[in-house]
Amino acid sequence: MTEHTAYNPSIVLIGAGNVATHLGKAFHEAGCRIRMVYSRTKESARILAESIGCPYTTDITSIDNEADIYIVSLKDSVLDHILPELVKCNSKALFVHTAGSVSIDIWKGLTHRYGVLYPMQTFSKQRDINFDNVHFFIEANTEEDTELLIKTASLISRHIFKASSEQRKYLHISAVFACNFANHMYSICEHLLTSHGLPFSAMLPLIDETAEKVHHLSPVSAQTGPAQRDDHNIMNNHLSLLKDEPEIAELYLRISENIHNYQRNKK
Amino acid sequence: MTEHTAYNPSIVLIGAGNVATHLGKAFHEAGCRIRMVYSRTKESARILAESIGCPYTTDITSIDNEADIYIVSLKDSVLDHILPELVKCNSKALFVHTAGSVSIDIWKGLTHRYGVLYPMQTFSKQRDINFDNVHFFIEANTEEDTELLIKTASLISRHIFKASSEQRKYLHISAVFACNFANHMYSICEHLLTSHGLPFSAMLPLIDETAEKVHHLSPVSAQTGPAQRDDHNIMNNHLSLLKDEPEIAELYLRISENIHNYQRNKK
Repeated sequence: MTEHTAYNPSIVLIGAGNVATHLGKAFHEAGCRIRMVYSRTKESARILAESIGCPYTTDITSIDNEADIYIVSLKDSVLDHILPELVKCNSKALFVHTAGSVSIDIWKGLTHRYGVLYPMQTFSKQRDINFDNVHFFIEANTEEDTELLIKTASLISRHIFKASSEQRKYLHISAVFACNFANHMYSICEHLLTSHGLPFSAMLPLIDETAEKVHHLSPVSAQTGPAQRDDHNIMNNHLSLLKDEPEIAELYLRISENIHNYQRNKK
Repeated sequence: MTEHTAYNPSIVLIGAGNVATHLGKAFHEAGCRIRMVYSRTKESARILAESIGCPYTTDITSIDNEADIYIVSLKDSVLDHILPELVKCNSKALFVHTAGSVSIDIWKGLTHRYGVLYPMQTFSKQRDINFDNVHFFIEANTEEDTELLIKTASLISRHIFKASSEQRKYLHISAVFACNFANHMYSICEHLLTSHGLPFSAMLPLIDETAEKVHHLSPVSAQTGPAQRDDHNIMNNHLSLLKDEPEIAELYLRISENIHNYQRNKK
């Protein structure tokens, strides 16, 4: 008879921004012990640590040295500076970062066990995330730690994939288009509507259908509108509506041209 | 005791493209009698007419002359040419077009009763639409016909609004950003993923959350990613990934700059 004990790694969170906050709470709720939160900003560290019920520090030399996994969710630009200091706290643990765009090689030569745990999602502090549907992309420097990371991510999500750093670069830039840039199209839409006394909420059924449609059709086949039909009449009218907004007019023109090229090459 | 009879106008569909097809089927299912389909393309006219069970014609001088409402869903650029011929078929009926971008004044001087019935949605032939949630924007040249159009649209949707031609212009260009341009960001995403052996389906949870988020946060507040954080490190890496795709790189740069401007003005 084998006794199955629950797999519950203990974790230190390095960072207290959007990603660290959502991941930390999810692992905490999944039964993992969060041993500490580190952030350079005391207020952020305190808020996250209190919501989980764990200690925090702003001093990189005082980080807890007994965790199984250290999860680093910091601005990419500070990693080069912070990681060499961080790894000193524990020579046996597994260190991972959560950045889509940063290679696993950033850890090379710093410590023995390392990897990447990339949750491909858009995180805002004001909004709860259901991790069940978040896709995680996993990489580690050994097969054993790859399996360990898969087990760890499986505690909070049902969608775990292995991905190399090279693949992750393309996942990340693709996510920028599908999420950040699509969202910016919503921002321009809201700006145009509210400057003419119209409510953004009127657009929500259209936004929903546009997202839902690409579950069933490829985006190129799903495309509609003046640029898809190559209707220069309407496009010129639209450009004249944007005559006081040269940057938006420029985007309108270039995106329309690009839509037209994609339609031409459709098959 | 008053007898309530159902309001069921009889309709002729002018056009057999995506909008005419979806609208025609919806009105047919709501119990309206579709008296005829007109299209310049025989095959399109036949397919739509057969699916509804009504006659069709490709001859503008043979259009049925007994309908209550004539609904025109044609490419905007042919309206100037076709409407003067069309109105000859019936001097008493109500004529409407469904184009977001075309003023009600296109009917002026042609006939006595006219208006606009604009369903703000993205229609593809391959995909059914639930009209319940489609927002309709209504305009007519008399108060009486405005009310009649509201009653008509209410047969298939719960969201009917009056909108002037001036407002509709801004609704339409805003819809191009929120729908067509957001969808093009999905197209670029799919292109980047499939050229690197990655499946577009991995992106769907992110696309869904991005759309769902703006039900609760304004798009500017919901924004995340390298441009929002002004992370030039990542943006430069992304631009170097796009070095063989100058048009996409140009879009990346300009949309990122525009996101940064919107974030700076957020307050």
